[in-house]
Amino acid sequence: MSMILKNGMILEEDLSFKDRDLHIDGDRITDFVQGEVEDLDGMIVMPGLINTHTHAAMTLFRGIAEDVNLEEWLFKYIFPREDKLSEEDVYVGSLLGFMEMIKNGITTFVDMYFFEDAIAQAAKDLGMRGIVARGLADTDGHGDRKLLLAENFIKKHFNDPMIKGGFGPHALYTCSNDYFKEIVRTSKDYDLPLTFHLFEAPNERDEFKKRTGIDAFDFLDSIDAFDEKTIIAHGTHLNRNELKILSERGSTLSYNPISNAKLGNGIAPIRTAMEVGVNVTLGTDSAASNNSLNIFNEMKFGIMLQRAKAENPVIMKSSEVIRMATVNARKALPFDVGALKSGMLADLIVIDPNRLSTLPKKNFLSHLLYAFDTSAIVKVMIGGKWVYDENFLTVDARKVMDDFEKTVNKIDLSI
Amino acid sequence: MSMILKNGMILEEDLSFKDRDLHIDGDRITDFVQGEVEDLDGMIVMPGLINTHTHAAMTLFRGIAEDVNLEEWLFKYIFPREDKLSEEDVYVGSLLGFMEMIKNGITTFVDMYFFEDAIAQAAKDLGMRGIVARGLADTDGHGDRKLLLAENFIKKHFNDPMIKGGFGPHALYTCSNDYFKEIVRTSKDYDLPLTFHLFEAPNERDEFKKRTGIDAFDFLDSIDAFDEKTIIAHGTHLNRNELKILSERGSTLSYNPISNAKLGNGIAPIRTAMEVGVNVTLGTDSAASNNSLNIFNEMKFGIMLQRAKAENPVIMKSSEVIRMATVNARKALPFDVGALKSGMLADLIVIDPNRLSTLPKKNFLSHLLYAFDTSAIVKVMIGGKWVYDENFLTVDARKVMDDFEKTVNKIDLSI
Repeated sequence: MSMILKNGMILEEDLSFKDRDLHIDGDRITDFVQGEVEDLDGMIVMPGLINTHTHAAMTLFRGIAEDVNLEEWLFKYIFPREDKLSEEDVYVGSLLGFMEMIKNGITTFVDMYFFEDAIAQAAKDLGMRGIVARGLADTDGHGDRKLLLAENFIKKHFNDPMIKGGFGPHALYTCSNDYFKEIVRTSKDYDLPLTFHLFEAPNERDEFKKRTGIDAFDFLDSIDAFDEKTIIAHGTHLNRNELKILSERGSTLSYNPISNAKLGNGIAPIRTAMEVGVNVTLGTDSAASNNSLNIFNEMKFGIMLQRAKAENPVIMKSSEVIRMATVNARKALPFDVGALKSGMLADLIVIDPNRLSTLPKKNFLSHLLYAFDTSAIVKVMIGGKWVYDENFLTVDARKVMDDFEKTVNKIDLSI
Repeated sequence: MSMILKNGMILEEDLSFKDRDLHIDGDRITDFVQGEVEDLDGMIVMPGLINTHTHAAMTLFRGIAEDVNLEEWLFKYIFPREDKLSEEDVYVGSLLGFMEMIKNGITTFVDMYFFEDAIAQAAKDLGMRGIVARGLADTDGHGDRKLLLAENFIKKHFNDPMIKGGFGPHALYTCSNDYFKEIVRTSKDYDLPLTFHLFEAPNERDEFKKRTGIDAFDFLDSIDAFDEKTIIAHGTHLNRNELKILSERGSTLSYNPISNAKLGNGIAPIRTAMEVGVNVTLGTDSAASNNSLNIFNEMKFGIMLQRAKAENPVIMKSSEVIRMATVNARKALPFDVGALKSGMLADLIVIDPNRLSTLPKKNFLSHLLYAFDTSAIVKVMIGGKWVYDENFLTVDARKVMDDFEKTVNKIDLSI
């Protein structure tokens, strides 16, 4: 199907706004097409935002543990509940998480969890695009089986334009060195993302050294874990030299400012990463540690954390943060997303500029970054299809919310 | 008029939620009343939030200067435009700013600006409650006239339950020492807030010392600037000893985390302030430096900045931040606000718990603090009157927004 969106105020790749028509042919933006014309009447149109690190199903766990430290959070609250989740539970949790993302203008995700078929189904039911990376760990002795499942999933979705697989070795502290190495080696056979948690908490580096006698970063580099398809989640405690190496390897860093702050893990060295040329993107992490799934919040808080830490208001530019949420992510992903130009996928959000929080009608780039309230998002298109127009167009939101409540009550989050 | 709100889930002063009726007699909450019954059908009811530091009219300047440092921001962008503002402009800007606050659940403000009658009129037109503190500076030679205007405004509003005056000496760098002393002395005659910017930027302390030869904090203490009615805005660079003295004097600190971060002024020592017993509240500052007027954002970012800085997720509790936004502010204000109990003013917000961002329906205190999207605020009551029910009930929002755009274009923000 072809379509022309008229009279929108389009956010261009150079971050200027242009009053031009957007031609869409099937799932892509094109130079010229004949088709149905839709009048956007001066609305802002920007690329859909890309969330490069999340665990959508964990929306089930939103708010279950506050005012506790990371270890207690993980071992006392999260892991025991994850053990109780069924495939259906993961479907229900992912569906609600992805809905929250779409409502907040996210069109592409990189998810890491288990029951990958359920996650993919949730995304497909909504018409959302993303990477479903199997969360891999071998501490339970089932590492090989999980890796096989990940490969099967990847093969099944190889020609799927919306959902592709990926490899998600959870972290150095949940994968043996041999297992991590095997995953990296396997991932080289596919041109798909490899994504893992790295140096999220301050103690991760020391504990690896204590346990194995070798340096964690050196180990990962020695097994070729850092290449162009690698997305490192967090990286809160990477140093300048390591960032330089990541830049040379062409890897991507997913900056998760809110989750890192809330769990007391610190402030990632993003200014340094950018100085040495690392490709930086943004992630929400899960609703269990954030607790909202909103890249607009990550942009605002992400830039402010850097400024607060440096006591310097010019250390990071507004434009740089908008790029993290859009075009930068494309580098690591097998999708042509992040910019509204010919040949790219038609993944976009339409924003009403006539709201209290977007006045005065000047400097919309600033408003999008700092003043924005996502209730001004009036439409979301993914792959040339409208999926949201202040209501979800492909699922019954009320039913999803009811199912979600039933699931939460059934799995007894109060453990 | 008396009213009974039935079937709400009331956020109590101890931060538990109780399913009880709320009786309202005139502008106050009471133990028992007969009157019109309104069924809230399981909605969350919490005290209206209190914004203890703002400049509502500066909403006119939202987004005009990004990626610049504080000095350039103030002297190149803000001050030249403020010189051009008429009383009518201040009315229009304040009206839009207060509307954004109400929509985001703020019912009481402490504003500091000029043209106080226009600010008060904007608040009255909306039915909002607040302190209108005249911003006082004598660098232009008109200090005495301004102080007289402030006193006149105060006298005029002495018996007004909604709007009261206050004294707002701008800062040590815009008031001479004698003028600051005169303001403090005058303010003692009235039982109203004295509020000023203090140690917002890192260099303020040193520059005062260089200019006057004395210590800025000692000077203020020597003129009795710190008493129970004092609200210090920012305090980003107060040290432990100074915080101890503020605690002894009974002063209040308005923590403005977003503005401080965005302008690169640092992270206020809030944990220390609380340890030594300072009464801490929250402020948005203006939409020129924030750029939204939303205390829910300040709560979320405020606690996370502290955790990020300390790399400690238990350094500040969720409950403490909710108190900053509600009951703490009462200490410095001449209004009985911040808690929904008998004798207090009926200033409250009604929140729909059936939204994506407030699921699962458990631990609503956590959701309010971390996951919340203010589009779930469905009603706002101030002084026993509904002022907002997803529409503004006392003004024509569309007309206000049009007037705002006209004003912005007229004063030529592009200077």
